[in-house]
Amino acid sequence: MRIGIVGYGYWGPNLMRNFAELDGVELRWCADVRPERRELAKKRHPLVNVTANAADVFEDPAVDAVVIATPLATHHALARQALERGKHVLVEKPMTQTVAESEELCHLAQRNGLVLMVDHTFIYTGAVRRIREILDVGELGDLYYFDSVRVNLGLFQHGSDVLWDLAAHDFSILAHLVPGAPTHVSAIGADHTGSGYSDIAYVSLHFATSFIAHLHVNWLSPVKVRQILIGGSRRMLVYDDMEASEKVRVYDRGVRVTTEESLHRTLVDYRTGDMWAPKLEFREALAVECEHFVECVRFGRVPRSSGPAGLLVVKLLEAASRSLAVGGARIPV
Amino acid sequence: MRIGIVGYGYWGPNLMRNFAELDGVELRWCADVRPERRELAKKRHPLVNVTANAADVFEDPAVDAVVIATPLATHHALARQALERGKHVLVEKPMTQTVAESEELCHLAQRNGLVLMVDHTFIYTGAVRRIREILDVGELGDLYYFDSVRVNLGLFQHGSDVLWDLAAHDFSILAHLVPGAPTHVSAIGADHTGSGYSDIAYVSLHFATSFIAHLHVNWLSPVKVRQILIGGSRRMLVYDDMEASEKVRVYDRGVRVTTEESLHRTLVDYRTGDMWAPKLEFREALAVECEHFVECVRFGRVPRSSGPAGLLVVKLLEAASRSLAVGGARIPV
Amino acid sequence: MRIGIVGYGYWGPNLMRNFAELDGVELRWCADVRPERRELAKKRHPLVNVTANAADVFEDPAVDAVVIATPLATHHALARQALERGKHVLVEKPMTQTVAESEELCHLAQRNGLVLMVDHTFIYTGAVRRIREILDVGELGDLYYFDSVRVNLGLFQHGSDVLWDLAAHDFSILAHLVPGAPTHVSAIGADHTGSGYSDIAYVSLHFATSFIAHLHVNWLSPVKVRQILIGGSRRMLVYDDMEASEKVRVYDRGVRVTTEESLHRTLVDYRTGDMWAPKLEFREALAVECEHFVECVRFGRVPRSSGPAGLLVVKLLEAASRSLAVGGARIPV
Amino acid sequence: MRIGIVGYGYWGPNLMRNFAELDGVELRWCADVRPERRELAKKRHPLVNVTANAADVFEDPAVDAVVIATPLATHHALARQALERGKHVLVEKPMTQTVAESEELCHLAQRNGLVLMVDHTFIYTGAVRRIREILDVGELGDLYYFDSVRVNLGLFQHGSDVLWDLAAHDFSILAHLVPGAPTHVSAIGADHTGSGYSDIAYVSLHFATSFIAHLHVNWLSPVKVRQILIGGSRRMLVYDDMEASEKVRVYDRGVRVTTEESLHRTLVDYRTGDMWAPKLEFREALAVECEHFVECVRFGRVPRSSGPAGLLVVKLLEAASRSLAVGGARIPV
Repeated sequence: MRIGIVGYGYWGPNLMRNFAELDGVELRWCADVRPERRELAKKRHPLVNVTANAADVFEDPAVDAVVIATPLATHHALARQALERGKHVLVEKPMTQTVAESEELCHLAQRNGLVLMVDHTFIYTGAVRRIREILDVGELGDLYYFDSVRVNLGLFQHGSDVLWDLAAHDFSILAHLVPGAPTHVSAIGADHTGSGYSDIAYVSLHFATSFIAHLHVNWLSPVKVRQILIGGSRRMLVYDDMEASEKVRVYDRGVRVTTEESLHRTLVDYRTGDMWAPKLEFREALAVECEHFVECVRFGRVPRSSGPAGLLVVKLLEAASRSLAVGGARIPV
Repeated sequence: MRIGIVGYGYWGPNLMRNFAELDGVELRWCADVRPERRELAKKRHPLVNVTANAADVFEDPAVDAVVIATPLATHHALARQALERGKHVLVEKPMTQTVAESEELCHLAQRNGLVLMVDHTFIYTGAVRRIREILDVGELGDLYYFDSVRVNLGLFQHGSDVLWDLAAHDFSILAHLVPGAPTHVSAIGADHTGSGYSDIAYVSLHFATSFIAHLHVNWLSPVKVRQILIGGSRRMLVYDDMEASEKVRVYDRGVRVTTEESLHRTLVDYRTGDMWAPKLEFREALAVECEHFVECVRFGRVPRSSGPAGLLVVKLLEAASRSLAVGGARIPV
Repeated sequence: MRIGIVGYGYWGPNLMRNFAELDGVELRWCADVRPERRELAKKRHPLVNVTANAADVFEDPAVDAVVIATPLATHHALARQALERGKHVLVEKPMTQTVAESEELCHLAQRNGLVLMVDHTFIYTGAVRRIREILDVGELGDLYYFDSVRVNLGLFQHGSDVLWDLAAHDFSILAHLVPGAPTHVSAIGADHTGSGYSDIAYVSLHFATSFIAHLHVNWLSPVKVRQILIGGSRRMLVYDDMEASEKVRVYDRGVRVTTEESLHRTLVDYRTGDMWAPKLEFREALAVECEHFVECVRFGRVPRSSGPAGLLVVKLLEAASRSLAVGGARIPV
Repeated sequence: MRIGIVGYGYWGPNLMRNFAELDGVELRWCADVRPERRELAKKRHPLVNVTANAADVFEDPAVDAVVIATPLATHHALARQALERGKHVLVEKPMTQTVAESEELCHLAQRNGLVLMVDHTFIYTGAVRRIREILDVGELGDLYYFDSVRVNLGLFQHGSDVLWDLAAHDFSILAHLVPGAPTHVSAIGADHTGSGYSDIAYVSLHFATSFIAHLHVNWLSPVKVRQILIGGSRRMLVYDDMEASEKVRVYDRGVRVTTEESLHRTLVDYRTGDMWAPKLEFREALAVECEHFVECVRFGRVPRSSGPAGLLVVKLLEAASRSLAVGGARIPV
């Protein structure tokens, strides 16, 4: 299987390094408009062909799949060209800038029988895969809330706000873990630098039930926090990605609700118990993901982070952006 | 100075213990409707008079000041009686259930020349007092945001929701630290136990500027978090109350905003530097507060957590409750 | 049951507060040579008799038991007087300054049929009691090592070194948890202040098996550490007393040793698994301990931290001191 | 500058990756006796020549420098051959198995005018470099103690004990930071697996002054700890390598020693103040080190981790091993 990578900036080198380690994969092309990045790619991978022109990758009939790691604004056009030329595509998150663009890519991939996968790296981590297993067997009981904090001093992106940068991760994790789609989204935020882009945002996702999801994303935090709380009726879970070892902890804690018939009132009682931190697989998430992409292409499987999964994330981002622009009103998804 | 305490439940013993340690203070009365609580008070403070009837305290002409540590619903009636009988009053937070009630107490205290103080304990901690000093000298530059997380598995209160229980702390800290009042409040929450009261809530406070404040309060979290982030243009601050020693950390980190004239665009650059954790006074906050109350009574001073400060907190709670009830709409303060 | 306390300094108030809460216990005396401490005791416990003279306590025929919380140098003489007058005794740790003195007290208590208990508070914590249960059922397999770090900037004691102050805790915990007594002790330390007393010490306890125990005690550490590691063949345990909630964590981690017959060599393989943090009882250790003392007196039981347990700790302290004085040589216990 | 690497096992790939990134450096050879490792090296660095025979590297006249990343037992022979063939050498730590071997290599390098450097990676970290600066300006005052804990479940090495594996790091850090060499070393340890090698060891280093150094190294700990405390008369420092951001913290805490003339006794008083965490350079230590090696070769400089520095570490390891073998006696260095 022969692969071409378009974009050798911040994330491209990680993708390239991981694909290079896979058996049966040949890195054939690396395209980047910047000469110094092409030079670096060549230094690290002397056998790869470098080019300033992504079209060289798409036109090469030997190329089976294309990895797109360019700025968001270019995802749609590049992915469309690749799909039109019959290439399988792995594209950086978020998939595109608009829902319409994502829908177009999904249709194109389906019509041409090609794999379209979005690089939602977090769902390939040992932590998220283990949480999914815990939720699948009902360990937590009924789900109450999903609360995520993803903040640090970090990487102000031109042409994007903190929502499209960071919340994309949480939306993909949430959609992967929690069944049922949100009905409405609301968001508020602020732009403190005059850049025209929010650097801090709070997003609420409303569901048909009393389940509630909330995100805090922030480019201007002095400390790095990557913590997700998932509350359930039977147990509760903390996923702290900054922990060196026990990233996932399951707490045998919760509330017991009883109804005192005679008094017609609800009694709530707390229950505390042990804590348990399951062993996680420590393999690099990106390695798992790249291998998964290769397998999906080879055996015609649907990726865990498929085009439709990427489309849902873009839908949520679009709704959240709309809410943020009007000061926090509920926007239907 | 002679003091009577009304309410010897969860918090009353702490107040009584602290007042008992102060020089020149005589604990004269402890009123509680429950015999077993009166018995416990008597065991611990053999010289105090106990009674089931709060009126005994108010009617005693020897009593100078009354401390009210009863359930929220009774604050207003009890405080009013005390003020009407010419007693200085220290009342548990939140001051009352409604803005109207708080306003009445403030007027009554002012008319009768009495000290009315609200037990906003946190503003008497070494941490908050140090943060106030740091902010007063402009150490952080322009303030960007105030983000508080106050969550744990905790003490479900009948007759109250998580907002009135926990957010009262954050509102008092915010009002004490940040100049300028919020113009609007919005809040969402959820009731997972069918008790009719929210057990989780997210509150946003909107200001005339781009400054933004946000709270996450939660009775159903498996872990205890008490963390406030304050972001500024020059420096940023973390107040982590769960830290054993360095509760307050100041980070010399921020963003540099420059404008590239020729390109008409804003450039944002990160700046990272040292971190600094000031030494804090370790004295128990409640001891500081009780002493402060005694001094205010003695010398006719205005308390740091005065009636009007308590009134503002109730205003914010009322607005947040209203927003929560209608699904998160912005409510003017 | 009537109790007298001798010594109202740093720890005495905690003992007095806890005994005062117990049903059926009357605090009859508080003796302290310092008038200001007597005054404070009287203020907090108005019904207690105060005196400068410990003999008043011992001579009172109504007194059943005496609690001794004075400086180490006075323990032996005071405890002896109390035992001779037929009083049960709870004495601060370490029991006495020498092995001979401790032995005398043990004999005296036994001869007079009195309870002699040493205030080894840690063994009454929820954490240590839970660890004991875990070890008792063989959860950890064969024990490999016990490693304790107990350091902080702290409370330089005149007339004592860091060993007698801090290592006493670890010796009592070790003896409570691990069966089998050490055969030899070695210790090194240093005196950086010219006070004539070591402010830092490292102690090794050698056993007949390959089990090894080691302590690091330090009065000059910038940070507070209270961590014990217990390694076993099946599982390993961490007891971190600075953790707010999960103080005890059990790791399903260890080594698998196999012998490759053909190669005549040992193969060691690591095994990692889940971590588990048991729920602990949160009751104040000193409350548990005071209640235990009262029960032992009432029902003639042998305390968990009996005279002989206190004697063993003094034996280990004496041996460690001797080793330290000669630069670390092994001293038989 | 042309480089050959001998040994492509655990650490070799990191060295190779870092040298590959340096400008003006050509990776010419990679030698490893295992075909699958050679294959992996070739896959990652397609232009490098691979060989099973280290002699091919030494014999190539185009090679300027050799990097030796093989098992300890082979260091001496390989480094000697390289030095004899006029190659500069960077060798894994510890330099050799015996003091005599290290001395021989040092002489050989000096006689032939070649750079001999040992891969003591830690002294190239941003943390250790910053600590060195802090100590150089006397920030801590007189040094009191150096306490290191380096433990985890980890990588049982055949043909080595935990001392030679882990303590080598601490000895190199200690020697780099603290002036003055230890006069004696004592060590105890235990072998719990029957492998013939200690899996846990405690090492004390004695100096002519009251300064004391102590290490705890352990292959059988359930948790990973990498913490060094350095106590001084003016300030104290913690270097916690497991911290994500503030790895180095300086505490303005200490003791004040005064002498009360009239009483002829020493008074010790504690002083607590702020904490300060300096910004550290985040560049990968190995990158800094590889660049340093290249510079030393190019400009004939003496490396920071020179042959003699490596020799001192081997001297300390040898003395510690000897002490451990005889149960902890003091061995002169």
